Amino acid sequence: MAYKKVDERDVEALKAICGEDSVFFGEEINEDFGRDELSEIKSMPEVLVEPLSTQIVSEVMKYAYEKNIPVTPRGQGTGLVGSSVAIYGGIMINMSKMNKILELDEENLTLTVEPGVLLMEISKFVEEQDLFYPPDPGEKSATIAGNINTNAGGMRAVKYGVTRDYVRGLEVVLPNGEVMEIGGKVVKNSSGYSFKDLIVGSEGTLAIVTKAILKLLPLPKKTLSLLIPFENLETAIETVPKVIKSKAIPTAIEFMVRDTIIAAEEFLGKQFPDSSSDAYLLLTFDGNSKEEVEKAYETVAHICLEEGALDVYISETQERQEAIWSARGAFLEAIKSSTTEMDECDVVVPRNKVAEFIKYTDELQHQFNIRIRSFGHAGDGNLHVYILRDALSEEDWKKTLQDVMDCMYNRAKELRGQVSGEHGIGFAKKGFLKDSLGDQHLILMKGIKSTFDPKNILNPGKIC
Amino acid sequence: MAYKKVDERDVEALKAICGEDSVFFGEEINEDFGRDELSEIKSMPEVLVEPLSTQIVSEVMKYAYEKNIPVTPRGQGTGLVGSSVAIYGGIMINMSKMNKILELDEENLTLTVEPGVLLMEISKFVEEQDLFYPPDPGEKSATIAGNINTNAGGMRAVKYGVTRDYVRGLEVVLPNGEVMEIGGKVVKNSSGYSFKDLIVGSEGTLAIVTKAILKLLPLPKKTLSLLIPFENLETAIETVPKVIKSKAIPTAIEFMVRDTIIAAEEFLGKQFPDSSSDAYLLLTFDGNSKEEVEKAYETVAHICLEEGALDVYISETQERQEAIWSARGAFLEAIKSSTTEMDECDVVVPRNKVAEFIKYTDELQHQFNIRIRSFGHAGDGNLHVYILRDALSEEDWKKTLQDVMDCMYNRAKELRGQVSGEHGIGFAKKGFLKDSLGDQHLILMKGIKSTFDPKNILNPGKIC
Repeated sequence: MAYKKVDERDVEALKAICGEDSVFFGEEINEDFGRDELSEIKSMPEVLVEPLSTQIVSEVMKYAYEKNIPVTPRGQGTGLVGSSVAIYGGIMINMSKMNKILELDEENLTLTVEPGVLLMEISKFVEEQDLFYPPDPGEKSATIAGNINTNAGGMRAVKYGVTRDYVRGLEVVLPNGEVMEIGGKVVKNSSGYSFKDLIVGSEGTLAIVTKAILKLLPLPKKTLSLLIPFENLETAIETVPKVIKSKAIPTAIEFMVRDTIIAAEEFLGKQFPDSSSDAYLLLTFDGNSKEEVEKAYETVAHICLEEGALDVYISETQERQEAIWSARGAFLEAIKSSTTEMDECDVVVPRNKVAEFIKYTDELQHQFNIRIRSFGHAGDGNLHVYILRDALSEEDWKKTLQDVMDCMYNRAKELRGQVSGEHGIGFAKKGFLKDSLGDQHLILMKGIKSTFDPKNILNPGKIC
Repeated sequence: MAYKKVDERDVEALKAICGEDSVFFGEEINEDFGRDELSEIKSMPEVLVEPLSTQIVSEVMKYAYEKNIPVTPRGQGTGLVGSSVAIYGGIMINMSKMNKILELDEENLTLTVEPGVLLMEISKFVEEQDLFYPPDPGEKSATIAGNINTNAGGMRAVKYGVTRDYVRGLEVVLPNGEVMEIGGKVVKNSSGYSFKDLIVGSEGTLAIVTKAILKLLPLPKKTLSLLIPFENLETAIETVPKVIKSKAIPTAIEFMVRDTIIAAEEFLGKQFPDSSSDAYLLLTFDGNSKEEVEKAYETVAHICLEEGALDVYISETQERQEAIWSARGAFLEAIKSSTTEMDECDVVVPRNKVAEFIKYTDELQHQFNIRIRSFGHAGDGNLHVYILRDALSEEDWKKTLQDVMDCMYNRAKELRGQVSGEHGIGFAKKGFLKDSLGDQHLILMKGIKSTFDPKNILNPGKIC
């Protein structure tokens, strides 16, 4: 791809558009902007711009489009697959400075936000109004546009679905700089192809999100968590389809093993309520009355005990629940800090295949003599599996990693799963997506990409 | 567009693919296949085929693609905008013979069905298993693939969302005949652009749905309906945003006026529980206990009475609820039978703009001296507005209809609404979609269409 290199004249032009203080060139750019949270993919943008309005984003894109300069949009850089890394240099647009909550509409139950608002800010803001934004990915410091771009799911997907389900409208800037409004505050929409759903999950390759209208729900009045120890992970996970089948609907069902809990305890310097068992299920229930929640959890506790649970710990208070869930939120960081380097696999499989998949990753540990750690969303089939480098040489690591990943993605495909449940494809998982979906699927994706972005300047080199 | 005309040799080839008894040519085709439920758009296919398997659909498409013959997929023909009318003749594929329920997976809470299964069959089947398929469009004899293709919403969208939200996976046949699997039983998916969501609502223009994996929920144990009379429609509808704001979540909130109720009474030959007031709200609540449901409806009944409701009639028994809702289900047919001809407008506006829009349609009645009847989903902002021809001459009708439609779609746009909430665009609403979305949006839709269908043979002349 013959992109134009950014030169002094481009920098001046961008400064004229964005303002002197919002453009950083060459060595002025902090090296954090050259990578994301996990992937070893590193590449610095040539220039970084920090727009404060849709108008500015539009003008930057018009300029880039005319000059044929690649543009990489970025939020907080908390991604795990290299989506927000400027593979081809060019312009990086840091959208995280557009971070205002614009409007709470209580009559339509919508929240309108700029792209850079953080997930934790949204939940805090709406919960103070007795409202609820259900998507709950582990990384609370991600921007909402980042969540939209990966269609992040999080813990509460079991009951409430994923980010996609909570986006009602978008304002986006297209690669040619045109501003387009999509959807709105409307609850239903059958007015042509759903661009809203095409943009959600497109990892910044089709358009830049500059505004989002989110759907809210009333805040459930009562929540409760159960921590349930099991003798081993297999027994724990095999219980989950039985819980689903029982027609109780937990808000979340997570699984975890002792090793991960201990790593989190060490990382946080805090004790988890219990770490004496090999494996745990962590469930939450919510509802509008104590009776409603109790009825649901009693059914589930009973099923778990019947299936071999060693005990059932109930956490009703806010503090106790936060203690457990903050440990859960630290798993990724804890595992990361326990090794030299790692890579992850974010497959999603049907819920009744989780046990089989986890058992397989355990076999891979032995087969390849490598540490594999996993935790994740047992209730929705989305697993986060981490392959740890530990003391392996660069060469051995690369080879083993590739082999292990190939094995895992192949098995996921056999189980009729998908490559990514919520972290996306980015740059790191492109090959696996191709293997999983096949040529016809990829040709269509490429066709959509070139419809939106004929010059291939917006986040090139990602997804397909 | 220079499509090939269907000749005897094509018919022989199609008979070789589909079987002798599944191909109808020329005058053998029932004239019902030349139109849909409402639109005055009429055009007969040259040949009708009734495949029984994905393989046959694939072979028919391969043949049509090679020979450049247009293909129109069709379910039960209950659409209202001409989507399933063969504008350019060619081959019509009647998908309604592929009508088997394939699998209920209780561990993953999914139902796998062929495209021609009727909505009423799905609800009956799953409810017998104590499970629930929430989408509830008025037309229960539509096929599931028809619902998927229009992203039908129905009454329960207030609480449960629309068809899109209940499709987990699809098997489709592309215009070139290739079979593609999309999604699956997985709860989350961030594996490239969401083709599932692109196909949902695409009105058979991108691919033919040959199988669908639907998401189910546990069946709520308790439901209850409230029929609430008001002195006038404005007061009734203005109450709805207050209900939403109260954070009670009804399953459905419909509005209706006396004229429509009386038309339905006449049409069904049955009495509605009350028709003495000018306007009504009809609400449903569901939940897992009597207390839960009662708590919600008491809050709402209180708000309605405060806002001027004349009374609150509670229907708890199955029979009473069915009596009310079957009248609601007959509104379209009742209005249709009260006039010579009619056309409809299926706009969706933000929920707090419904009153303003309905007031405007009332003004249009006087301004254009024409009868306009409406009912619809007050709780989700999706209105079904019918313009009645009565005794107008052909010429006057055409002109007035166009003027009234222009006024309504313009006002919907001003209120930041969308052209269609659930009936789709088809052939009839193409001009309004163009006016509403603008050129850039349409260019992108056309790009997507030609990516999937470079020869423009699949349901040509629809949407864009």
